Amino acid sequence: MLINMAESNSMKSSKRGEANVSSGFLDAIAWNTEGLVPVITQDADSGQVLMLAWMNREALARTVERGEAVYWSRSRKRLWHKGETSGHVQIVEDIRLDCDGDALLLSVRQQGGIACHTGRHRCFYRRLENSLWQSVEPVLKPPEAIYGK
Amino acid sequence: MLINMAESNSMKSSKRGEANVSSGFLDAIAWNTEGLVPVITQDADSGQVLMLAWMNREALARTVERGEAVYWSRSRKRLWHKGETSGHVQIVEDIRLDCDGDALLLSVRQQGGIACHTGRHRCFYRRLENSLWQSVEPVLKPPEAIYGK
Repeated sequence: MLINMAESNSMKSSKRGEANVSSGFLDAIAWNTEGLVPVITQDADSGQVLMLAWMNREALARTVERGEAVYWSRSRKRLWHKGETSGHVQIVEDIRLDCDGDALLLSVRQQGGIACHTGRHRCFYRRLENSLWQSVEPVLKPPEAIYGK
Repeated sequence: MLINMAESNSMKSSKRGEANVSSGFLDAIAWNTEGLVPVITQDADSGQVLMLAWMNREALARTVERGEAVYWSRSRKRLWHKGETSGHVQIVEDIRLDCDGDALLLSVRQQGGIACHTGRHRCFYRRLENSLWQSVEPVLKPPEAIYGK
């Protein structure tokens, strides 16, 4: 458990990420010049690394609050509740910070078993073989079936 | 195997990283504005995520060439052959690229069982518990015993 239940319940009713979360832990992070930190997301069951994404303070506060991964989308320049369109939500089991305070590691339960927008289990599906990147993992569901277009 | 043996042997004798490596795979990577890409390093045996570091083109070329992790140290602004001082070299088993081409995943055999400069198995030893980062993994060897001062 990341947070105790009383704290969790009060946070569920909060509208803003940091309002009811003790935010001192956010200050321990060495945010980069853009206010972001890289986040590694690992499958709690298989141990496979699913993806690398980014968070700002609000994304991490909301992740703790909801117990589901909320990232900062650098391309869309907005908060991104993972699975908001696909339903492939990531339920957070554990959050770790590294020695330098400039990288996070999330352990998650990946709903739907698909983390990648290409419809694969994970984003790291290309393997270096004889100086070429080879796709070595199957598409489990076509993106058009996930995103409905 | 990342590379075939004939290719490997010819690369061992090379002085420069990219000289004998077919470098097309480097062009597939979406290097950031500083010419870097974040690299997740995972223990091939335990599946634990050990650390997050960075590479530039030359670091990745040398990593492929040597079969050992070579990063770009952002603080020291130079190539960093992991383990060059500590002996805690990382033997590379597998290199993956993500869907967007902007993150790498290395699977390694961690020599000495210590990836972190604090003397711990891995850098992600702080866990978020009740809004505090708690150290939850032991120091296996004091840094002064590793780095000799």
